[in-house]
Amino acid sequence: MAHPIDFYFDFSSPYGYMASTRIDELAARYGREVIWRPIMLGVAFKTTGGQPLPSIPLKGDYAKRDFVRSAAFHGVEYRHPTVFPISTVAPCRAFYWADQKHPERAIALAKALYRAYFVADVNISNPADTVSIGAQLGFDATALHAGMNEQSIKDTLKAEVDRSIARGVFGSPYVIVDGEPFWGMDRFDQIERWLAHGPF
Amino acid sequence: MAHPIDFYFDFSSPYGYMASTRIDELAARYGREVIWRPIMLGVAFKTTGGQPLPSIPLKGDYAKRDFVRSAAFHGVEYRHPTVFPISTVAPCRAFYWADQKHPERAIALAKALYRAYFVADVNISNPADTVSIGAQLGFDATALHAGMNEQSIKDTLKAEVDRSIARGVFGSPYVIVDGEPFWGMDRFDQIERWLAHGPF
Repeated sequence: MAHPIDFYFDFSSPYGYMASTRIDELAARYGREVIWRPIMLGVAFKTTGGQPLPSIPLKGDYAKRDFVRSAAFHGVEYRHPTVFPISTVAPCRAFYWADQKHPERAIALAKALYRAYFVADVNISNPADTVSIGAQLGFDATALHAGMNEQSIKDTLKAEVDRSIARGVFGSPYVIVDGEPFWGMDRFDQIERWLAHGPF
Repeated sequence: MAHPIDFYFDFSSPYGYMASTRIDELAARYGREVIWRPIMLGVAFKTTGGQPLPSIPLKGDYAKRDFVRSAAFHGVEYRHPTVFPISTVAPCRAFYWADQKHPERAIALAKALYRAYFVADVNISNPADTVSIGAQLGFDATALHAGMNEQSIKDTLKAEVDRSIARGVFGSPYVIVDGEPFWGMDRFDQIERWLAHGPF
């Protein structure tokens, strides 16, 4: 099997959420695995001078419109969250804990967290809400909550974020295929061509 | 005929150039006219805090790669200019002069200026180069050069830029269809759906 695809995303990113509903099927069609890597974009923003979209004049107003319209275009259920954007420390730590302890269910947890935030309007920045979503999927709530506070999990998250910056990740979704970076849900058509035919 | 489409672009924008090779055909398929409106994005950047892509850490490196790859993906001839980005006062003024004096050839001039910059590596920020490209299309070089320095043309350009900001334009290409804004060559699929089926 060819090299796996790295899928970097921020749990507070609408386009990351949309991408999360498609990336596995897309990769599977071309015999690829996907490594899910949640990160916290705020750290990259310190390097790039980036800001959360809603806070940017003109672009912020456009973005709010584009989130909803792009979700409709791609046929992805979407309800713009009441609190937006949010800190994603809690869902990131929950993911990396699951990824270490129950790797076969980590992606399901990521998808459930994304749906909770972008469909059910649950503020997953609250550790209790993130734990509750894990529990609904069958994770042990006490173990998950404890895991989110373990130093090793904090270290794993920090290492993933540091590595993402070193690899040039500055946005979400950010997909790396065979070393080639693709930023945005709107590069999925280019990813597909790459997977099907290689470099172009 | 339905309302015309507004096509805002910056002559220094690679994605604007790519879009310029497609917008007229796309609109024509749905019985629409296109109003070409070159602007100077630097003015909007003062409002949005935006910067030319190449100067942004991480994102700049990605952008240079994405320009070339996206052009290949869309089948658009592209050679990244030696001097990039550039001031676009000269080509903008040339366009608006042509738009007033020879409107039937203004779009041809815009396309020729874009090709000169992004294929032939001509620095169209130089008024003499812009005039020369106009002359190759059959415009009177003396009249064009004089027109680019007319106060009324300067005023027209300033009014277009001011109006673009008032309409929320912050990037290139930026297309407005029936009041709905679409930013980026990568929203052309959404523009097409809008033209074919209306709001979604």
